[in-house]
Amino acid sequence: MADRRSARVAALRDGLTAAHIDALVLTSLPNVRYLTGFSGTSALLLVTQRDVHFITDFRYDTQVRDEVGDLATIRIEQQSLWTGLWNLGASLEGVEIVGFESAHLLHRDFQRLLTDGTRWQWRPQLNLVEALRESKDADEVALIRRAGEIATRGLAKTLKEIRPGMSELNVAGILEHALRDEGSEEFPFPAIVASGPRAALPHARASSRVIERGDLLLLDFGAQYKGYCSDVTRTVVVGRASSEQREIYDIVKHANAVAASSVRAGMKGQDADGLARRYIEERGYGDAFGHSLGHGLGLEVHEAPRLAKTVETPLGTGAVVTIEPGIYRPGWGGVRIEDDVHLAASGPEILTDFTRELLEVA
Amino acid sequence: MADRRSARVAALRDGLTAAHIDALVLTSLPNVRYLTGFSGTSALLLVTQRDVHFITDFRYDTQVRDEVGDLATIRIEQQSLWTGLWNLGASLEGVEIVGFESAHLLHRDFQRLLTDGTRWQWRPQLNLVEALRESKDADEVALIRRAGEIATRGLAKTLKEIRPGMSELNVAGILEHALRDEGSEEFPFPAIVASGPRAALPHARASSRVIERGDLLLLDFGAQYKGYCSDVTRTVVVGRASSEQREIYDIVKHANAVAASSVRAGMKGQDADGLARRYIEERGYGDAFGHSLGHGLGLEVHEAPRLAKTVETPLGTGAVVTIEPGIYRPGWGGVRIEDDVHLAASGPEILTDFTRELLEVA
Repeated sequence: MADRRSARVAALRDGLTAAHIDALVLTSLPNVRYLTGFSGTSALLLVTQRDVHFITDFRYDTQVRDEVGDLATIRIEQQSLWTGLWNLGASLEGVEIVGFESAHLLHRDFQRLLTDGTRWQWRPQLNLVEALRESKDADEVALIRRAGEIATRGLAKTLKEIRPGMSELNVAGILEHALRDEGSEEFPFPAIVASGPRAALPHARASSRVIERGDLLLLDFGAQYKGYCSDVTRTVVVGRASSEQREIYDIVKHANAVAASSVRAGMKGQDADGLARRYIEERGYGDAFGHSLGHGLGLEVHEAPRLAKTVETPLGTGAVVTIEPGIYRPGWGGVRIEDDVHLAASGPEILTDFTRELLEVA
Repeated sequence: MADRRSARVAALRDGLTAAHIDALVLTSLPNVRYLTGFSGTSALLLVTQRDVHFITDFRYDTQVRDEVGDLATIRIEQQSLWTGLWNLGASLEGVEIVGFESAHLLHRDFQRLLTDGTRWQWRPQLNLVEALRESKDADEVALIRRAGEIATRGLAKTLKEIRPGMSELNVAGILEHALRDEGSEEFPFPAIVASGPRAALPHARASSRVIERGDLLLLDFGAQYKGYCSDVTRTVVVGRASSEQREIYDIVKHANAVAASSVRAGMKGQDADGLARRYIEERGYGDAFGHSLGHGLGLEVHEAPRLAKTVETPLGTGAVVTIEPGIYRPGWGGVRIEDDVHLAASGPEILTDFTRELLEVA
């Protein structure tokens, strides 16, 4: 672990050199975790070509020493992490031009740089650490696979308990309970449990709607293990499926299978998206697939790369991405089938193992 | 509801006048929800002295019309909400000086204002809407009380099921399941379930630690109802309490009771904090109460005001605040008892109804 983190810091230093900055202040907690292993919620990190300085508050005094150890010089600040940074600045030599994370710094805190941080010249930076995070190593892939196992085991338990007459909130409760029992540390995002016509809403969460026999039931949820996330969707029918439900389901299932087996590192994001979209369009449902095919995941449930119509960037080797085609018909319902796929150099490797056949539950 | 929202927009307009700005761009989703009722996760709001303009994406086409209705002119943007704002700008008259929410705008988006938003002069603003939100009306207090009932009913169910040999994650699962069954829409924050020595960690979350007979068990969690949050902590003993556990518990219980019955609107944040802190100090545990007494809650689980040693601002009339004294001893464990209290003009009103006696469970 210590070696891996040192290698990551070394790779970031190459990034600093290329960006012509002497140091970088990090305010993104997932970026800080990636570089140092710290899992708490209060941190400022300063990485220079020579040192790594970690600033946190008294609540994490024990934890930061356990997790970060001697990778960084640790400062515990009583008042504000920023005060710690300015105090630290007074003792640093050879640091003049300092980057900050433009996508992870609020304007309010940016103003601190201009008022209290005048010792340094500031340069906004984008994606210096995110670019490193895109390509997962074998240990990271194993953790995402484990988070996927927690998710799919929780789903298997949940599907056995679903009955007509339960609300979506009841089902969310059963699912979250099962995910906890399987070892999920937290939930990467609030579970979507959407039944009947609500399955057509792309961002439905869970409601008090009571599930009826014959409903489509869409479950989109994730688990977290040692910080790494999974993100899975399955759609089932409560009771017996109609022929129309089967027809739509089979199109989405085929789109999922084509995309998950054909997606490759090096492909443009828009070409990956097209793998599923072209097939759904051919079947006449192009307008009903209103979101993009997928996104990267790792320490965050949405990270680089993006698999979408407008994205010309190629998918990085080693990325883990979701493949989540769907068809949504307002008033009728919707179907989405989502898996997590590792883009290994040798080809795609599906990390979420759960049947993609249409299940009739209850 | 429509009238209440219109009154809120009118109050914000008084704030614009006082700040010498013609309009405000809002990027904080809780602030947008407070003003418009919108519960989705994609929104830009522009409030001028004459109009309210709401920009969201296609996913919320139906929802925004249901929730916001004719309070605002609605634009659905395909690409970026910011593009929608610049297009809108071209048609607005009499708007020159525009505020933005400094505490809710990332530097990356701030740069958009300077590159694409040059039609307007920009002025950073702090707390224009947050200040309105601090004082809750009767309907808001009722929603927080309801979120408190969901939380305490969920807790009552959970305590009946706890047994030695369960992990903290198991207990979190039982608790979250019960909260869902009672109607919690989401979880305002990840539940803290901390047992034995882990109860001494101020930010423990839930772990795979197995609960043993004789452990203190601290549960800090919340529920959400129609957007409004509750935040409750109880500490129990699994099995029979020792005399030392009882002694510490009674000090915290008394500190909670003193503070919850004596806190008043108009009191400085530091004086409110002192209500509990003084008593804990007198009993010799001042160093073991390492965090502040409480915080406001409403649409967010942490909002204005703050009840802390360094805060000279008075608590607003109508605010709802947590009262959460604690004593933590590294290696031994900790006790915290937290309630939500409405600071009515007539005095404090406790919204979370659950025994504060020491419970021995299992």
